[in-house]
Order: sequence, then structure tokens, then C-alpha cells
Amino acid sequence: MIRIGVIGCGYWGPNIIRNFVQMPRVEMRKVADLNVEQLNHIKCLYPTVETTIDYKEIVTDPEIDAVAIATPVHTHKRLAVEALENGKHVFVEKPMAGCIADAEAMVETAKKHELQLMVGHTFEYHAAVRKMKEIIDSGLLGDIYYINCQRLNLGIFQKDINVVWDLASHDISVVLMLLEKEPNQVMSIGTSHINPSVEDVATTTLEFNNNIIAFIQTSWLDPNKVRKMTVVGSKKMLVYDDIQANEKIWIYDKGVEVPERYDTFGEFNYSYHYGDIIIPRIENKEPLRSELSHFIDCIENGSRPITDGNNGLRVVKVLEAAQRSIAQGGVNVRVNSLFEHYN
Amino acid sequence: MIRIGVIGCGYWGPNIIRNFVQMPRVEMRKVADLNVEQLNHIKCLYPTVETTIDYKEIVTDPEIDAVAIATPVHTHKRLAVEALENGKHVFVEKPMAGCIADAEAMVETAKKHELQLMVGHTFEYHAAVRKMKEIIDSGLLGDIYYINCQRLNLGIFQKDINVVWDLASHDISVVLMLLEKEPNQVMSIGTSHINPSVEDVATTTLEFNNNIIAFIQTSWLDPNKVRKMTVVGSKKMLVYDDIQANEKIWIYDKGVEVPERYDTFGEFNYSYHYGDIIIPRIENKEPLRSELSHFIDCIENGSRPITDGNNGLRVVKVLEAAQRSIAQGGVNVRVNSLFEHYN
Amino acid sequence: MIRIGVIGCGYWGPNIIRNFVQMPRVEMRKVADLNVEQLNHIKCLYPTVETTIDYKEIVTDPEIDAVAIATPVHTHKRLAVEALENGKHVFVEKPMAGCIADAEAMVETAKKHELQLMVGHTFEYHAAVRKMKEIIDSGLLGDIYYINCQRLNLGIFQKDINVVWDLASHDISVVLMLLEKEPNQVMSIGTSHINPSVEDVATTTLEFNNNIIAFIQTSWLDPNKVRKMTVVGSKKMLVYDDIQANEKIWIYDKGVEVPERYDTFGEFNYSYHYGDIIIPRIENKEPLRSELSHFIDCIENGSRPITDGNNGLRVVKVLEAAQRSIAQGGVNVRVNSLFEHYN
Amino acid sequence: MIRIGVIGCGYWGPNIIRNFVQMPRVEMRKVADLNVEQLNHIKCLYPTVETTIDYKEIVTDPEIDAVAIATPVHTHKRLAVEALENGKHVFVEKPMAGCIADAEAMVETAKKHELQLMVGHTFEYHAAVRKMKEIIDSGLLGDIYYINCQRLNLGIFQKDINVVWDLASHDISVVLMLLEKEPNQVMSIGTSHINPSVEDVATTTLEFNNNIIAFIQTSWLDPNKVRKMTVVGSKKMLVYDDIQANEKIWIYDKGVEVPERYDTFGEFNYSYHYGDIIIPRIENKEPLRSELSHFIDCIENGSRPITDGNNGLRVVKVLEAAQRSIAQGGVNVRVNSLFEHYN
Repeated sequence: MIRIGVIGCGYWGPNIIRNFVQMPRVEMRKVADLNVEQLNHIKCLYPTVETTIDYKEIVTDPEIDAVAIATPVHTHKRLAVEALENGKHVFVEKPMAGCIADAEAMVETAKKHELQLMVGHTFEYHAAVRKMKEIIDSGLLGDIYYINCQRLNLGIFQKDINVVWDLASHDISVVLMLLEKEPNQVMSIGTSHINPSVEDVATTTLEFNNNIIAFIQTSWLDPNKVRKMTVVGSKKMLVYDDIQANEKIWIYDKGVEVPERYDTFGEFNYSYHYGDIIIPRIENKEPLRSELSHFIDCIENGSRPITDGNNGLRVVKVLEAAQRSIAQGGVNVRVNSLFEHYN
Repeated sequence: MIRIGVIGCGYWGPNIIRNFVQMPRVEMRKVADLNVEQLNHIKCLYPTVETTIDYKEIVTDPEIDAVAIATPVHTHKRLAVEALENGKHVFVEKPMAGCIADAEAMVETAKKHELQLMVGHTFEYHAAVRKMKEIIDSGLLGDIYYINCQRLNLGIFQKDINVVWDLASHDISVVLMLLEKEPNQVMSIGTSHINPSVEDVATTTLEFNNNIIAFIQTSWLDPNKVRKMTVVGSKKMLVYDDIQANEKIWIYDKGVEVPERYDTFGEFNYSYHYGDIIIPRIENKEPLRSELSHFIDCIENGSRPITDGNNGLRVVKVLEAAQRSIAQGGVNVRVNSLFEHYN
Repeated sequence: MIRIGVIGCGYWGPNIIRNFVQMPRVEMRKVADLNVEQLNHIKCLYPTVETTIDYKEIVTDPEIDAVAIATPVHTHKRLAVEALENGKHVFVEKPMAGCIADAEAMVETAKKHELQLMVGHTFEYHAAVRKMKEIIDSGLLGDIYYINCQRLNLGIFQKDINVVWDLASHDISVVLMLLEKEPNQVMSIGTSHINPSVEDVATTTLEFNNNIIAFIQTSWLDPNKVRKMTVVGSKKMLVYDDIQANEKIWIYDKGVEVPERYDTFGEFNYSYHYGDIIIPRIENKEPLRSELSHFIDCIENGSRPITDGNNGLRVVKVLEAAQRSIAQGGVNVRVNSLFEHYN
Repeated sequence: MIRIGVIGCGYWGPNIIRNFVQMPRVEMRKVADLNVEQLNHIKCLYPTVETTIDYKEIVTDPEIDAVAIATPVHTHKRLAVEALENGKHVFVEKPMAGCIADAEAMVETAKKHELQLMVGHTFEYHAAVRKMKEIIDSGLLGDIYYINCQRLNLGIFQKDINVVWDLASHDISVVLMLLEKEPNQVMSIGTSHINPSVEDVATTTLEFNNNIIAFIQTSWLDPNKVRKMTVVGSKKMLVYDDIQANEKIWIYDKGVEVPERYDTFGEFNYSYHYGDIIIPRIENKEPLRSELSHFIDCIENGSRPITDGNNGLRVVKVLEAAQRSIAQGGVNVRVNSLFEHYN
């Protein structure tokens, strides 16, 4: 029985609590938040869960094995480090931290204390994303040319992080997982229309080796909710539309055929192929449930989480590069590889 | 009766010919193309139209009043200038020319000979785009925050121009028309996956005064045909989806309300409004027909075309800036205003 | 504090329990079901709720004020009557009963004991259905010509009732509410392809006064989930598509104009009008929550539920007529009015 | 070179003319219509085509080999018979005639003169319908349970035929082709809301051997254009949505599994299977072009058209049965088989 404390039950926290409550091998023990009203609501839903306004009562509770943190980003590092230092395994919401230094500190602390540190990049546990990964790895799409992502909707506006940290973090995590590479450079253009100090719309470009590119469009100011990724390969193309209730992944047998060899000064013709579309069946399972089960598994087995601290840090590196690019009007910012260093 | 000659009947030319054939006040007289098979096809469809492989037979024909040019971009300038110097009015397909210098030469020649020079920016004659313009001008949307455009599909690959010149030229022309401004700077990131010397996917950003921004995504390598513009304003938001058969424009009564005055260090809350959606009825008329009728009107009345040479030149300026940006890996390129100069 | 017992926690019961648990003025006290595993699941979710395999422990419990019944249809009458005779208010799932006689007995018992009897016609509490009703009552659509309903999906197969009792009961309840009339006659054609004794696909027609007609298509064997109602009026047309996440109601300003007077032997022309489409904002609230709150309100205030026993009986009358029509290969079956009798 | 005359150039005739003009092995010679304005329009589009207001000039012209008839239904028989008696092959629009007797007379006349008589059931030449037929014939769907058709839109109101003759004729022709059977009985319920003597909305049911059923919904009063057929089989399900630009056919690997043998009084459970969806590529070809090419082929080769007179007569039989059913309020009307008789 893993005994859990949750810090933060604002927007996302209640989903974490609900999932832990429903897991047989978990005891959902205590919840901390500064908002008493929110705590009362949790108490009403789950009378057996204890509540407190003091997070210290969680990080120091000897009856708690693991802590889930769903608070504003700038508090992640302090809470995670304190919990780790008190011998708790830590699950922290994404983005892991607001800067590389904080993320590195978290990774180091977990390493030192030999505890689990897992980051809530939920989409990496989404059955549709897993299916995409499987399709790409099978070679069905051929070589990847580019990935185009859109994540748009009408806010919730954040006050401490901009739209890139809030929304693009999902796409970055998925793109890095799909490609199994880090980008060499990042460019991002963002503007703010509501709160002058927080960008609410941005377009971010990640450049990888082999001419692979990822475009990530994010907005808190779009009338429609869009969550879409298009993966264009040399053989086939794939669209993942997360808004669709059932038909989430479409595999298009479409492509352009380039003549084997041609004289660029002479005449040649492209040919196109168009074939059937396949919509594979995707199991309908709550990604957060899969993610939190994985966290419990890793604690029980001592195995390394798919989205461990290094995984989360890798995303923060790209986010920080994007932030710097925005600040300088969209210039190229190089990302140094973390792979050798941490893996 | 305006007597017309058409040069070029490859991909788009036949549509121009068909429209001129069906206009009562026009005599569709002669067509030139290097491809004899294509000419035979035209002859078969319209037995009364003359055909020739020598464009000179059109530009020098004293029985022809106006010439429509639908040939590859790099030939536009030479053909248009020759036609103008022979006293013909000229309609030239978009983009007007492959560089600013050529476009300027065309404008100058038309001015000198006091002849019409009109550019085929068809979307500016599209009933849905006209409706968008009307809605924006009425103030319904409030201040424009940003415009997001997507123009994606599989091919047709061009050999002499890249995806920006081919596809983004439409969005640029519409955005400039809607905003009635030119951008201060342009950034564009493009990559080529099929033909190494021609970009087939690109994302272009136009920055205007007052923090207005336009994002233009273009691809020749997307499995789905997308033609979409989202206009986000301070009061309402609008989506124009040209793929929809009937419901092309959606006006969303959605927005974020910022507190009148607030202390950025203190606490404040955004509020959101969500209201009805209105889908205005759009007249179903072929935009090319409206465009070519306008060309004939302008010849008959001596009035200036909506998409005259200066309008076309303005678009070329942005395209050339985007081209330069791509060549330098996405750097900012400033566009100097043409307004004072030419209008 | 109203103290609630729930009988039946199979497919729909858990939703009722969840809602009652979350209502502050309700004590969700006890749940009965024959399936122990199901009871354990409820116990795990809501440790404070008592469970039992004997429904008698609910209907005779003096600490229980009201009973909600979510069991197979053929048990409704017995359970409801027993609960009423023990002085409990009763909420019973739809359809209220498997035949008119049972429904009548339930209504009579509730009347005799002066207790609430409410039927779970949830859609009558759905914000979109309420909005439709409001639009129709405002006269916006003009005279109603016909209503076309589709309720299709793959399974879940029922064993004791056919697709008409299962699915069409929703449409019948909504249509009667919208029109505020009962049909004069009912025709239904149904066939069974999986279980030979239970129809799994059916088309049912309700004929009302004034040439108003309602078509109801139902299937347990359709690959797509469809929940759609089209209301065609003399002035405007309305589509309610419950599958849409947000845009559920579309009001079309479309219609046919008939010449004021015409000679049927001579020449005349219809004209059509096409105008804007309006998609009114619908509040996003769980209909079951509204329904159960209304039940509690009615108990507290002694007011009559919108979907009281007579309302439920009216639907059963149409269902029984449909059943008889199916049995005779689709013949017309007359429905005698219940209005004068019961109201 | 087959020389063609066309009688009727109102709504559909111009499409026939356009196709014949574009076929190399055909000479589109003469067009007759009572409407001079319409003739002038044709003359303007195709200056080499002769026009006349007297259809006799077509049926008696020795320079004409075949006549296409696109006039109101009640004139079909007289025009077709006259043309056949003058030695012309005949292509007649659907429905072939307004009653069985007329259709039979047409078939007899063609037989007697050994001339082609083909009916314009265009959908039987549609690439998507051909693909459906191929899929069904391959056994992929298993046994067919039922076919559900919807053909809805706003207008165009006909004055001489009702919505069943106008719209359901398409579905009937396709259903008979797919199943290769005639129905045993037909039920149809129709009502008229605009012109009291012409039904504008109807639901028609066709019952075949082996418990196969087809539902056909038709309306001239629906705000949306719907053209949809769902074919439910014991193994898979197929949806053909003709409104989709590209993805017209969806094959769903969905179904219900019935236990091999079960005791209906005991307990048993259905199981469901859900698999991938396949959207086969459909060639994008104008069905009318395929149809008219087939007509010319049959004249040249002396082969029997797919939609010959007997095919057209079979559809008229079902239509006449539906008509009689509507007149009697939806009663069952038996259709006697024509197969043995004519084939």
C-alpha cells in the first residue's frame, strides 16, 4: 500500500486525487492547499481524506510514502526538494520547473536520495500517443520530414507562465518522445495581447538533425479548441486529432514521389500517390490513470519512470530556449544536448 | 466588346478562358501556349477561340484590347511589359512577379502607357473575404490582436517558386487587405524535403504596428486540404474556413475580459465571455468570375482595379522579405513602406 | 436533509449515486443491488454509503425519505409501489414501466399516498432541450411541420426491452414536451438481427393533429453514435445535435416560400430563403444533476415534477402503441388521449 | 461517331450536353427545349450545337443516332417511344416513367425495335457505389442486416412528382443493385407541408427476403444536405457519405457477437468487437461522365446497359408501391417480382 499526499488541489489536483482514491493499492491520505474552500470540497467528495493548509504536514508526515505536486510552477522546486529530502518519492506536474537550474536541482536531489522523481507529462501515457510512437517506430511512415502541432483554445490564462510553458510543453514532450532526439535550435515568436507581461499566442520552431523540423502553434486566444499533430513522413502521413472522440489517429497513404535521379536543369515530374486511410482503434483509457499507475509501479519495482526527471529537464531546456528566443524577437537559440550528460 | 487574348493555358488558364467565354460583353479571341496538346483541348471545348504557340501573335494583335497572363512567374514581367508597350491592358496572375524590381518595372510601364495593370489576387474578390472585411470594418471584432492562417495540402509542387510564393501569397494579399497596413517586419522559416532547392513547408510571421501579428502556415506536404484564417479581436473572434461548402465564416462571441485597472503584483482574475455563434450567409459566386468582371469594368470605366499593380507589388515586397528571411534561417527582415511612394 | 436509497447500481445507477453524494442537502444513505461486486465498487468509491443485496432494507428503512429505482424495467412497478406504500417518494428510471397498466398502478399509488413519483426522462432537463423548447415557444420557427429524430449507436443490447423502449423513449418524451400534444396514431417497423425476440432497429412515426409528424429512427446496430433532432418549421429550421461538444443547436434561417394564392393547374414558382445560422450558447450542466435537484426541490416544496407519473405514463402509452404496431408489421395504432383523464 | 440529340435543357440537361460535348467519339448535334432563353444560353456556351423548340426535329432527324431525354417525368414515355419508333437509341432520365404501364411500354418498344433503352440511374455508375458493391460482394461485411438511407435537403420542389419519386428513386436503384433482389413489400409514410398535393417528406421501408430491410428517408425540407447510406452486416458495417469531398466510404470493424448457442431463459452476454476503420480511396470521376460513356459503349458494342429498361422498370415498380402505400396511410404494399418476367 503506497500512501500518498497531494499538494495543490486547484485546477488539476482534484483529478490526481480522484485517480489515487480509485486505485486499490494506494492510500490517498492527505491533501494540502492554501484555499480552504477547495479543501472543503475535497473533504465533501472523499470524507476519508485528510486536509491541511500547511504543506509541511505532508512532506514531513512519516506515514506518507510519496507526494504529488500540482501547484504553480515556481513552487515546484522548493516543494519537490523538501519532499525528497524527507524521503518521499515525488510526482510533479509539468512543466517540471520554471528554469533549467531548478530542474537540475530536483534531478540531483532525487539522485542523491535514491528516490523516484517523475514529471506529469501525461500525453506520453496517452494511448493515442503510444500508438503514434508504435507506428513511427515500425517504419510505416518512412523518414520523418516534419511534425506540425497546434494547441489552441480560449485560455485559462496563467499568471506566472506564458502560453509556451503552459501549452507547448505538452507538444515538446511528445515530439521529443516521438523523435527520440533533442532539437539543435529553437525559435519562438510570441506576443501578448491581454496581460502585457505574459505571451498568450506563440509559434515555436524546433530544428533537429537530418532536416527534421517541428512547428508548434499555441494560443490562449482561439475560439476553437484544437489539439492536433501532423506527422509527415517520406512514405505516409499521420494526423492525431485529440479533439475527436473516437477517430483520433488517421494514417494517410499519401505522398510525393521524387524521380530516382534527375537533372535539376532539365524537365522532370513529381508523381503523387493517394491510397486508403486507416484509423486504428485506440483504447479508451484515461491517460492520467495510466500515468499515476506507472508512478506507483516504479515505486514498487524501483524501475525508472518513462517521464523521469531527466525527461522533464529535457523539456525545460527547450522551454527555456524558446523563452530566450521570444525575448529577443524570435532569434535562433541553440540547445546543447543533455543526452550524454544525464542518461 | 472587350477583345481578350490569354497567354498560358496550363493549370489555371483554362478557368480564365472559361469565364471570359461566358461573359457577354467580352470576346474571348485568342490563346497562346507552348503546349500544343493543351491548345487542342481548348480548341475542342471552344471551337471559336483561335490558338497559337507564339505569344507574340497575341501581344501584337491589333484586334486584341487586353491580355491575361497565366504563365510561370518568371515570365510575367517580360510578357506584361511587352503587352503594355503594345497598348494592351494587362491582367497578370499572382504572384505578380518573382522580385520587387520586376514588379516595379511592370507598374512603371502601365503608368507610362496609361493602361490597366491588374493582378489576379482572386481571394480579394471572394464573397467570404469581402464579408470578413465588412465585419472587421464595422468594428464588431474590436481591435485586431492577431490573424492566424493555414494553407496546407498535398502538392502541386512548383519548380520555379517555393511554397511561400505559391500559397502564402494568397494569405498575404488577404491580410494586407483586411488590415489596410503593411508589416514592419517579416520572419519566415522554411524547409525543403522533396526538391532540395525549393521549400515545401514554411511558417511565416508578419509583424505590424500596434502589436498586430499574422501567422501564415503553408505546406505542400499535408495530407489534408486546409484553408483557414482565424481573426482574433478584443471583442469577438472570427474563423473563415474556405473548405466548408456553406458555413465559411463563424463569428464567435468569445473573449477574455481584463480587469479595468489592476496591480500586476497583486491578485486579479480574468473573466471570459462566451455567447452565441453567428454564421452569416455568404453569396455563392465564383471569385474568379467577380475578379475578371472587375477587370473588364475597370477597362470600360477607366477606374483603378482593387488589386492594381501597386497592390500586387506590396505583396511581392512581403514575399521577397520572407524569401530573404528563409535564406538566413528565419531572421527578421524589415519591409519599408510602399504606401507614400506609390499611392 | 433528504435521505436517499438507491435500488440498482448496474449501468446507470452509479451516476445517480454520484450526483446524490455531491448534493449538500441530500444524504446518500443506502444502495441495493443483487450484484455484490458492484456493491463493493460503490463502497470503495463512497465508504460512507451503506450497501445491501436486499432491496427491502431500503423500502422499509424508516431513515430513508426517498427511493431512486434504476433496475430493469419489468421490476419498476413492484419496487415503486412497495416504496410508495412504505411512505417513500419515488424516482424511477425511464421508461417508467413495461406496460400502461403498470404505469397506471404506479400513478394511482403515488396519488393515494400523496407522495412524489418522478420519472427519469433526463432529456427534459437537458439545457439544450430546454433551449429548443424556449425557441419553439417563442414562435421563431413558425408552425412546426415535422420533427425528425435519430438515435443510433452500437449496443448496449438490452435483454428485456427492445430498441424502441430503450432509445425511442427519449425522443418520445422530448417530442411530447416540445409539441405539448399527444400523437393520434403511431406506426412502427422493427426488425431483429441479433436476438430474434428483441427488435434492434426500428423506425417509428407519430402523427399529431394539424398534419404534424415525428419520425424516430433507432438502432443498436449503427457504427456511429448519432443523437440528432431536426425541427422543421414554416419560418425557420432547427437542428439539435447532442454529439457536438459545444455547438449543439443550430437555427437555420431557411425555408420555402409558397406563393400567397395560386392556381394549381397554372404556373407558379416556389421561392427559397437562406439566411444566417445562429448557434445559441447552451449552458454546460449535467442534465442528470438538474433532474435530481428538481426531484429534491419537489420533495421539499411539494410541487409537481415536470416529469411526474402522468408524464411518464404518456410516454409508455406511445411505446405500447409502437410495440403493437411492430407486432403487426407496422400498422397504424391509435393512441387515445390521456390529457383530460389525468391532468 | 455517335450523333446525339438532347430533349430538355432545364436543370439537368445542361450537364448531359456538357459531357457529350467533351466526348471525342460523340457529336453533340441538337438540343430541344420549350424555353428559348435556355436554348440561347446553350447556344452561347456551345456555338456549334443546333437548338430548336420542337422536339420532333430531334426524333425525326435522320442525322441523329441517339436521343437523351431530360424532361419532366410525365413526358418520358411519349418522347422515348417516339424516338425509338424513329430508330433512335434512347437515354432517359430517372425515374424512367411515372407509372409501371408507361415503363413497360418503353421497354417493349425498345425490344421490338432492337434499340438501346438506358435509364439515368447515375448513382449506379458512381465510383463510391461501385466500391460499395465490390466490398459487399467480397463478403467483407458478412450477411447484410439492413441498409439505412438518408437523402435530405432544402428543395428543389418538383411540381409533378413527390419527394419519393424525386429523391428515393436514387436510393431504391442503389439498394436493388447492392442486394441484387427486389423487395417483397414496401411501406411509405409521406406528408406534404408546402404544396398539399405533393409529399415533401417521406420515410419508406423496403422488406426483402431473409429479414433484410432498407429504410429510406427523404425530405425537401431539411436545412442540411444529407446523402448517406449505412450498410450493417453481420461482420462489419459500412457508411457511404456522399457529402464528404474525399472520405466517402468508411468501413467499420464493429459488430455484436452472439453466443454460439444460448438458452433464452438463462443468462448470456453479448460481446462487441471494435477494430480499425478503413477509408478506401475512391477515384474521383464524374458519375454522369461514366454513365454517358457507358451508353455510347453499349450503342457501339450492342451490349446491354447496366441500367437498361428493365432496371429502370424495377425501380418504378417500387416507387409505384410506395406511392400506393402513402395514399393509404402507410399500409404494406406487396411488390411482385419482375425478375423471371423480364430477364
